[in-house]
Amino acid sequence: MALTGVLRAGFVQLRVLDMKEALTHYVDRIGLELVDQGRDGRVYLRGYDEFDRHSVILREADAPGMDAMGFKVARKDDLKTYAARIKDYGLKVGKVAAGEQPGVGKRICFVIPSGHRIELYAEMERAKNGPLIENPDMWREDPRGMRALRFDHCLLYGPNIPEVSKFFTKVLDFALAETVETPDGQIAAFLTCNNKAHDVAFVMHKDPAKFHHASFLLDSWHDVGHAADLIARYNISRDIGPTRHGITRGQTIYFFDPSGNRNEVFAGGYVYYPDSPVRTWTADQLGKGIFYYEKELNERFLGVVT
Amino acid sequence: MALTGVLRAGFVQLRVLDMKEALTHYVDRIGLELVDQGRDGRVYLRGYDEFDRHSVILREADAPGMDAMGFKVARKDDLKTYAARIKDYGLKVGKVAAGEQPGVGKRICFVIPSGHRIELYAEMERAKNGPLIENPDMWREDPRGMRALRFDHCLLYGPNIPEVSKFFTKVLDFALAETVETPDGQIAAFLTCNNKAHDVAFVMHKDPAKFHHASFLLDSWHDVGHAADLIARYNISRDIGPTRHGITRGQTIYFFDPSGNRNEVFAGGYVYYPDSPVRTWTADQLGKGIFYYEKELNERFLGVVT
Amino acid sequence: MALTGVLRAGFVQLRVLDMKEALTHYVDRIGLELVDQGRDGRVYLRGYDEFDRHSVILREADAPGMDAMGFKVARKDDLKTYAARIKDYGLKVGKVAAGEQPGVGKRICFVIPSGHRIELYAEMERAKNGPLIENPDMWREDPRGMRALRFDHCLLYGPNIPEVSKFFTKVLDFALAETVETPDGQIAAFLTCNNKAHDVAFVMHKDPAKFHHASFLLDSWHDVGHAADLIARYNISRDIGPTRHGITRGQTIYFFDPSGNRNEVFAGGYVYYPDSPVRTWTADQLGKGIFYYEKELNERFLGVVT
Amino acid sequence: MALTGVLRAGFVQLRVLDMKEALTHYVDRIGLELVDQGRDGRVYLRGYDEFDRHSVILREADAPGMDAMGFKVARKDDLKTYAARIKDYGLKVGKVAAGEQPGVGKRICFVIPSGHRIELYAEMERAKNGPLIENPDMWREDPRGMRALRFDHCLLYGPNIPEVSKFFTKVLDFALAETVETPDGQIAAFLTCNNKAHDVAFVMHKDPAKFHHASFLLDSWHDVGHAADLIARYNISRDIGPTRHGITRGQTIYFFDPSGNRNEVFAGGYVYYPDSPVRTWTADQLGKGIFYYEKELNERFLGVVT
Repeated sequence: MALTGVLRAGFVQLRVLDMKEALTHYVDRIGLELVDQGRDGRVYLRGYDEFDRHSVILREADAPGMDAMGFKVARKDDLKTYAARIKDYGLKVGKVAAGEQPGVGKRICFVIPSGHRIELYAEMERAKNGPLIENPDMWREDPRGMRALRFDHCLLYGPNIPEVSKFFTKVLDFALAETVETPDGQIAAFLTCNNKAHDVAFVMHKDPAKFHHASFLLDSWHDVGHAADLIARYNISRDIGPTRHGITRGQTIYFFDPSGNRNEVFAGGYVYYPDSPVRTWTADQLGKGIFYYEKELNERFLGVVT
Repeated sequence: MALTGVLRAGFVQLRVLDMKEALTHYVDRIGLELVDQGRDGRVYLRGYDEFDRHSVILREADAPGMDAMGFKVARKDDLKTYAARIKDYGLKVGKVAAGEQPGVGKRICFVIPSGHRIELYAEMERAKNGPLIENPDMWREDPRGMRALRFDHCLLYGPNIPEVSKFFTKVLDFALAETVETPDGQIAAFLTCNNKAHDVAFVMHKDPAKFHHASFLLDSWHDVGHAADLIARYNISRDIGPTRHGITRGQTIYFFDPSGNRNEVFAGGYVYYPDSPVRTWTADQLGKGIFYYEKELNERFLGVVT
Repeated sequence: MALTGVLRAGFVQLRVLDMKEALTHYVDRIGLELVDQGRDGRVYLRGYDEFDRHSVILREADAPGMDAMGFKVARKDDLKTYAARIKDYGLKVGKVAAGEQPGVGKRICFVIPSGHRIELYAEMERAKNGPLIENPDMWREDPRGMRALRFDHCLLYGPNIPEVSKFFTKVLDFALAETVETPDGQIAAFLTCNNKAHDVAFVMHKDPAKFHHASFLLDSWHDVGHAADLIARYNISRDIGPTRHGITRGQTIYFFDPSGNRNEVFAGGYVYYPDSPVRTWTADQLGKGIFYYEKELNERFLGVVT
Repeated sequence: MALTGVLRAGFVQLRVLDMKEALTHYVDRIGLELVDQGRDGRVYLRGYDEFDRHSVILREADAPGMDAMGFKVARKDDLKTYAARIKDYGLKVGKVAAGEQPGVGKRICFVIPSGHRIELYAEMERAKNGPLIENPDMWREDPRGMRALRFDHCLLYGPNIPEVSKFFTKVLDFALAETVETPDGQIAAFLTCNNKAHDVAFVMHKDPAKFHHASFLLDSWHDVGHAADLIARYNISRDIGPTRHGITRGQTIYFFDPSGNRNEVFAGGYVYYPDSPVRTWTADQLGKGIFYYEKELNERFLGVVT
C-alpha cells in the first residue's frame, strides 16, 4: 500500500470531572458508541464508522485536559523504526505494555517540544460492532445524536511550534498542509499523514501540554447544522459556529463537554496530497484563516484551553 | 510523507465525436476549467480544486471511449522502480516523452490484462489558476455548473479481473477496498492507493479495454441533487440516479456526454485506510452493492460501455 | 386572517393488515408520534411538528387502502357553509358525531365524483406533546427515523377528474396549482387551499376510490437521502426515488407500508399564491412532470394503488 | 381560494448610495434578476422564482433606508375595503397612481404607528422571464450567486409595537405568529398573512421608520452556507450567521449592502396556519429567540438600522 508509516490519529485520552455527565455528552449527544467501561476506571468509546475497538478514552480526574494522543502505524516494525528515529532526534522514548488499554498492543510514547504526550501503536482489536463488511449496509443502526462518524484529529496548544512542526515532518513523515507565519516565525502548524487536511494541529501558547479540542467527523454541513440544533436544545456550552475554517476549509461547530474540554464536530475540507503546496497564512489574515466567515479572532477560542 | 508511490488517479484521456459539444458538456455543465486547446488537437481540462495543470484530456475521434488513464506517482524515481516491477510481473513497459502532453514530464505506459492502457507520471506543471494558497479563499470564482471539484476515478470493463486486481495490489501497491465474488471467482475490484474508497475500479466484461465511466467529485448530496436538476434542465442523457452505491457508499448520478461516454458525479463515500478490512459482495447482493436504493441490477448500467 | 375556509389536509385514515407491523413502519421508520391506541381499535399518529392531536389514523382491516381524508376548516360556521354549498353542488352530505375520532369535533362527510370519502371538521384537540410555544426549542426530542414533520397531502386515483377539480375549486375554494391536459381532457389535478403546491391531488383511474399515496413532509433533500438510507437498511419496499417531481418540484422518495399502502416523504416545492398561474403539463411531457429526472412514466407508479 | 385579502410582502423600495455598487451586490451576489433600469432613475429587481414583474426597487439617495414596503392584495376591490378599514382605524390613506412604478396598478399608502410607509396594491404585470409554466423546468437558467428565490419579508424598527401589531391583525387580517413580551409590554411582533412564519416583523426602537433588513428566500441550509462562502469571498460586510433564529426557526445569514442596508438570506422555518398558537418569548430568553445558537443579544444586530 502506498499509505505507510503513521496512518492516522487513532485515539485521544481525555480527563473528565464527572463520568456520568461525560457519557451523556459523548454517547447521547455526540453519538459515540460506548465500547467498554473498563475495570481500570476508564471508559472507551468509538465513532460508529471506525473499525478499531476504540478511539476515545475518558478518565475521571480532578482537572480536564488531554493525557495523550495516539497515532496508529501500519506495521509492528514501524514502532521500532520510529522509536529509533525519535531517539536520534533527541527525544526520550518510553514503552507502554500491550493491554494497558484493553485490546491494544504495545505502544511507544514520547513528549514533544510542545509538552504533549504522543503515542504510537500498531495493533488494536477490531470493534465487535464496527462497520459491516459483508454485503454491507451503511450502518448497523441509524446514527444517533450528532451522528459522529469517527474521531478525526486534535488541536493542541503549547510552545515551540517550529520544533514540533519539524519533528512531525522530518521524524514521523507527516506533511505540513498549512502554516501560520508571523514576522516572529511560525505560530501554527496543520499536519497530516494521509489525505486529510490535518490529523493533528499545533498553535503557539506559552504554557506547555495544553489541549484545545478533539474533533469528530460528520457527514455534511447539514449535520453541522443539526449538531447546532442539538447543542441549543440540550444547552450544551457552545463556543463558536456553525462556521467554516479558512484553514482546512472545514465546516464546523465548537462546544465544550461538561468538564470544559472543547470538542469540534465538522464536515468537509479539501483532499490533501503530498504534492499539494503548503497553504500559508499571515498574521494579519489569521482571523480569516481560523474563522472564514467571522474573519476575526476570538479571545475565547484562542485563550481557553484545558 | 507516509503517502508514497502512486498518489492518485491523475488524468483520463477520452475520445469524443464533436469537440464543441464536448466542451459545452464538460465545461459549462460539469463545470471543469478549460486549460488549453492544444496545438495537438487535444483539449485539456481540470477541476477547479486541482493543483495540477490538467486531469481530463479530450481527443476528437470517430468512436468514443478511453485512450488511457494516468496515475501520478510521488517522485521521479518511482517511475524507474515501478517500470522494473511491472516488467518483472511480465508486462511490457513503454515510454512517453516529456511534453507529449503539454506540461507533463515523461511517462511510462503499459497495457494491463483487462486491455486498458495505463500510464504513470511523476511531474505535471502547476495550474496557472489553481486553488489559492496564500491566505486562501475557498475558490477563485463561485463554481459553475455541477461544481465538480476534481477528476476522481474511472470504472473500467474488461476480462481478467482477478489478474488486474492482483497486479494493482502486488505491483502498484494499491489496496483492494471492495471486491465482488461469485462462485466463478472475482468479477469486480475497487482499488485505492490512498484514503479514497477507489481510484480505479474494474468490472468483468468479455471485451477488453472498455470504458464504463469517469467520475468527478462533488461537495455534497445537495450538489448531486443540483447536478440532477441541471441534467434534467439541459436534457443531458441521464443513466441512473440520484442514488447511492452500496459499494463505496458514494452518493451519485450517472449520465452520458454527447459522444456516449458515461460520466459520474458523486459525493461522500467512506475513508479508507490500509488496515480497513476488504468489503466483500456476493453475486446475489450485487444489485444492492451497485445501487443501494434500487437493489437491482440495471442492464444499461452493466452493458453500455464505450 | 387572510387564510380562511379550508386550511389544510388534516388527517387520513388508512387500512392496514397488521397493526404491529404498521406501527414499526409509521412510528419507528417514518418517525410519527404514537398518540393513542384507541379503544375503538384504531391507532392515532401525528407528525412531531403538528399542533393538532392526530393526523394519521390506522385501522386494521382485510384490505389496505384509504377510508377517508379529512380537511380542517377555520371555523365551526364553515362546516355549515360548506355543507350547504356541497349540497347545492349536488352531493349528499353526511354527519359524523363529535368524538367519533377521539378529540375531534363534529364532521361533515361526502363522496366526491372520484369515489373518495372526504370529510371536513373544524375542531381537534391540541396535541399534548405538540410543538413548543413558550420560548420554544426546535423540537422536544431529536426527530426519529425519517424525521417526518407532518402529514402533508394525499394523491388519490379515480374517475371524473375534471369534475373533482371543479368541485374542489368552485365549492371548497381550492386553487388548481397544476393540471395535466390531454387531447381527451384533464387527467390530473393538483389542488391547494394555501401556500403549498398541493393539499390533495387526483389522477385519472378507471376504478373509483383508489388510494395512491399519503405524503409526509421532511426538512430537506438531505433528509430525503437519509430516508432512502433507512429504506435500504430496513428493507422497506421502495417504489421510486430519491428523485424530484416536475409537478410541484418536490424532492421525493416513495415506498410501501407493510400492507402495501404507498407512502411518500418529500421536501421542497414552490410557494403557491392565488395569483400564481396554473402550471400545465401535456401528455407527451407527463413523464417529466411526474419524475423530473427519469422523464419517463413508470408502470408501477401509475398502476399500483390500494 | 381560501387565501384572500393581503397575499404577501410584495415589494420593498430601498435607498442606496451608489447604484452601480448596489447592482453588483443585489444582482451578482444575491442573484436577483435585473428587470428594468427605469427612466425614473429607479432600478427594478426580482427573485428568479417570482411571477410578478419586480419585488425590489432601488433608488439612489443620500442616505440608505427604506422608502416603503408594499403588500399585494388578492383583488382590486380589496384596496377599497382596506382603505375604508384603515381610515376607520384612524390612519390617513393616500393614493398612488397606476404606473408610478412601471407595470404596477394603483396603490394605497399609509404610515403606521411605527413610522413606516406601507402600501397595498392589487395589480402588477407578470414578469417577462418569470418561472416557467408550460411543462416547466425548475428554472430558466441555473440560479446565480446566493440563488435567492424571492423577496420574502422585512424587519422594521420603530415605536408603538403593540399598536402596529394590533393594526396588522385587526385591520389587515394578519396573524401574530410570534411575540416578544416584557414586563413593560410587547416589544416585537412577527406577523403573517399566509403560511409563512412572517411577512413582516417589527421590533421596538425609539426612532420611527427605521429599516432593519430585507430578507430573501433560499432553498436550503446548504445554500445558506454557500451564501456565507460568497460573503467571505467577496468581502461583503457580514453581520451575523450562518445561524438559526429561535423565532421562526429560519436558518439565516445577515450582511450589509454597500450602502449599509442590512440584508438577510434564509431557508426553512415552520409552516404557519391560522389555528397555530402564538409563540411567545420572554425578555430573558430573547437572545435565544433571536439567535438560537448564540443565545445572546448582539448590539450590532439590535442597534444598527438605516
